Amino acid sequence: MERIKVGTSRTYEIHIEEGLLGRVAEECSAVLKSEKLLLLTDSNVKPLYGDVVCRSLTDAGYRVTEYVIPAGEDSKNTEQYLNIVSTLAKEGFSRSDAIIALGGGVVGDLAGFCASSYLRGIPFVQIPTTLLACVDSSVGGKTAVNLPEGKNLLGAFYQPSLVLIDPLTLKTLNPAVYADGMAEVIKYGMIRDPELFTALENHVWTDTQIITRCVSIKSQVVAEDEFDNGCRLLLNYGHTIGHAVEKCSRFEVSHGSAVAIGMSVMARAEEDGADLADRLDAVLKDYGLPTACKFSTEELYRAAMADKKRRNQTLHIITVPTLGQGTVVSIPVEELNTYLRKGLSV
Amino acid sequence: MERIKVGTSRTYEIHIEEGLLGRVAEECSAVLKSEKLLLLTDSNVKPLYGDVVCRSLTDAGYRVTEYVIPAGEDSKNTEQYLNIVSTLAKEGFSRSDAIIALGGGVVGDLAGFCASSYLRGIPFVQIPTTLLACVDSSVGGKTAVNLPEGKNLLGAFYQPSLVLIDPLTLKTLNPAVYADGMAEVIKYGMIRDPELFTALENHVWTDTQIITRCVSIKSQVVAEDEFDNGCRLLLNYGHTIGHAVEKCSRFEVSHGSAVAIGMSVMARAEEDGADLADRLDAVLKDYGLPTACKFSTEELYRAAMADKKRRNQTLHIITVPTLGQGTVVSIPVEELNTYLRKGLSV
Repeated sequence: MERIKVGTSRTYEIHIEEGLLGRVAEECSAVLKSEKLLLLTDSNVKPLYGDVVCRSLTDAGYRVTEYVIPAGEDSKNTEQYLNIVSTLAKEGFSRSDAIIALGGGVVGDLAGFCASSYLRGIPFVQIPTTLLACVDSSVGGKTAVNLPEGKNLLGAFYQPSLVLIDPLTLKTLNPAVYADGMAEVIKYGMIRDPELFTALENHVWTDTQIITRCVSIKSQVVAEDEFDNGCRLLLNYGHTIGHAVEKCSRFEVSHGSAVAIGMSVMARAEEDGADLADRLDAVLKDYGLPTACKFSTEELYRAAMADKKRRNQTLHIITVPTLGQGTVVSIPVEELNTYLRKGLSV
Repeated sequence: MERIKVGTSRTYEIHIEEGLLGRVAEECSAVLKSEKLLLLTDSNVKPLYGDVVCRSLTDAGYRVTEYVIPAGEDSKNTEQYLNIVSTLAKEGFSRSDAIIALGGGVVGDLAGFCASSYLRGIPFVQIPTTLLACVDSSVGGKTAVNLPEGKNLLGAFYQPSLVLIDPLTLKTLNPAVYADGMAEVIKYGMIRDPELFTALENHVWTDTQIITRCVSIKSQVVAEDEFDNGCRLLLNYGHTIGHAVEKCSRFEVSHGSAVAIGMSVMARAEEDGADLADRLDAVLKDYGLPTACKFSTEELYRAAMADKKRRNQTLHIITVPTLGQGTVVSIPVEELNTYLRKGLSV
């Protein structure tokens, strides 16, 4: 089994192994002192993996309450949030009881925010079942729900007690959802890891190897910058433009596809970056991801300006002048136009 | 001006001075990099101090949005919480903008939870205007809102950027509200500070002196135990039984009165504690607080058992065998009956 230690304010481990789902209770009992568990999952994941996890936990003596949300981003709302914490209250959950998040990013983000705020914080365990959740949202402690005014506007930095990754769960993902996660995997290669990038080009690593490497990179970055004020910005490579693409498409373009487009634009905008941009585009296409969109420079610029990550009049963007060497650059907001024009025109 | 540094995960200062309300902007600008501020206050405080604070802030160039909640505990609900964060989103508040909480514990707790969760945390400044908020709720970073299922069930540990205390605001409190705060003041004397206790017996300290001392004690305890797993329990002296009294009265007995009764019962239950219990009762009565209630041992025991602070089958209670030496004692829950019987029978 792969074990990665994440050195945030509260240290925890990420365990990665095929077949881990069947041993969830054993893993949990090593870090939790709970009697009661809320197993939060969604309508897609429940029929696939709900039973094996629930059985493992009940057999071990936990009192498990299942809570199933409709699959999809729409469930990451304040109504679900309040319903879940009320359920915890009605079931008499104490500060040592816990939430188990079994599913993708929506389940993990929602479960994490509930765990962070119920009784000012109870333990939670992440069991991500999508590639995106494995390599991105389940590591780093960013939890959130959406407000009517925008995505992820409400949340907390809150670390799980444990993350359990069973790469076998990726076998049941549909190809588009798997590709969505690959965008972030490719991102790690671009910003930090030529070896990973080359392995992706040549299709020589297993899911377990890929996930282990991505999680190691993310946990290093997160440990250096838990509260997102510095180098964690690196993880936003492709995301400023990606978010703009998502917005312009009214979220019809998926997060991964949008990030793929954002990275491609940024790579094209790089001085002397044509070779790397070509390699990036080839890998993106190889894994079923887009490298262009139908929106204009002006549309994307306007959408990016409404982004919550804008601070005063300076924008932090990420450039990759050389493979594996992502860099945070502070620019006046207007200069984003230059990147968009350069990157889109090629 | 009195300055107390609180050494939690994020260090901040508490400033105490008569007349400080008129200089709020100056104080804030030393710690905030905000353009926009949300001034959260309630319908009691707004006509008294809203204008002076708002003027100070607008004169200094801040763009201030006022948000006034109806005075009273009922406003500490999830509806207000969601309305406030939606207001922040609509007004385009960024991660460097801030919330100013002007009022008592309800305003402070609500503002703090909003600040902790909007964009996963924006700065906030506490300006407590009740004695209870000055010496207790504004220090320590416990923020919360109530759920239909119970009080303070949703919240976060989240430290303010600054606490500004103007003891002149206490002059407009009605005597019952002032007495409510005195219960916590007397508690600090009991658990940690014979000098404070004696000063209270003899009425020789000013409000500024009293607040400064209480805030010093609380900030020491909080710095040692930010996340409420250890010595912070000391601050719960009188609170286990106090909460039970509040519940039995359906919250008609105020928090301070309930804590006063809880402390008195605990002091009476102490072996060889008659002398100290007499002194405590005299001080409580002197400051307009009750020392007895109409509820039976059985009623109080049942109410205490439903308390969220119960962990498994062990209860942490606080005893004060000698003035100033509060001690955390772990007992089997059933033993609370013994304390209740002893303390109520005298």
